Amino acid sequence: MGIDPGLTRCGLSVVQAARGRAVLPVAVGVVRTPADLELAQRLRRLSDAVEEWMDDYAPDVVAVERVFERGNVSTVMNTAHASGVLMLSAARRDIPVHLYTPSEVKKAVSGNGRADKQQMTAMITRILGLTEPPRPADAADALALAVCHCWRAPMNARLKGTL
Amino acid sequence: MGIDPGLTRCGLSVVQAARGRAVLPVAVGVVRTPADLELAQRLRRLSDAVEEWMDDYAPDVVAVERVFERGNVSTVMNTAHASGVLMLSAARRDIPVHLYTPSEVKKAVSGNGRADKQQMTAMITRILGLTEPPRPADAADALALAVCHCWRAPMNARLKGTL
Repeated sequence: MGIDPGLTRCGLSVVQAARGRAVLPVAVGVVRTPADLELAQRLRRLSDAVEEWMDDYAPDVVAVERVFERGNVSTVMNTAHASGVLMLSAARRDIPVHLYTPSEVKKAVSGNGRADKQQMTAMITRILGLTEPPRPADAADALALAVCHCWRAPMNARLKGTL
Repeated sequence: MGIDPGLTRCGLSVVQAARGRAVLPVAVGVVRTPADLELAQRLRRLSDAVEEWMDDYAPDVVAVERVFERGNVSTVMNTAHASGVLMLSAARRDIPVHLYTPSEVKKAVSGNGRADKQQMTAMITRILGLTEPPRPADAADALALAVCHCWRAPMNARLKGTL
């Protein structure tokens, strides 16, 4: 499961790793919470939605985008609050959580840590064999996180094994 | 209930508003999560502890310190993740959450938005009639948040009533 955390829009995706580097799309969506609702209640709505996804798809692992300090302060803080709530839902189900920075995801998926949104969307569409590009951007980002983990997990496991 | 959010140390307090500006101490403590544990599991430990406090004391309202971007980036992000998880616990119990900035708390409790830790601890000790200053600082901060809310809530309610 890939999660692009956000309070206004949170991208969610589920993929299935197949033979070699093949990755199959299972589900993708965006959870929105109304900006006029109180922060704590927005977090509750988000948490409820993500827990429903986790119950429905029972993912083996969750890949979440690591939140950085960039852009509008209150947006960053809301994203960090949202991310905390999402990680909690995974932890409560004993689902391992892996964090990836945006540039790690770009590098893994497109080979270029500075790929733009258009390039990323094109790559994800091709990798997953989708008939049309995933929209909105948060949905594509969630898929990219999931693909990134599928491709990096075997390498991460090997690295751990040699330590 | 007053909460000074944090992942390494989270201050928790419960007070009872009494006649006039009197505030009675009920409980104070600090929850710690081990730094060598994975982030998601630390959030789970914190959430479990806070939910236990909420179940034990059934607070009417929760005052939480608003997280700002200052100091070490990863500390700020961890605090923001922690704060999201704490607010969620309150929202799940339908307990209203009020956010206060550090300077709002200082101003409400000491009359000075730039009061230092020592002044704040002295004020809190006196206001609550404690026999010794609360330690560590996170515990004192949690009590200050709770006192701040007790004193500001009637004014906030009046302001809302006039809108």
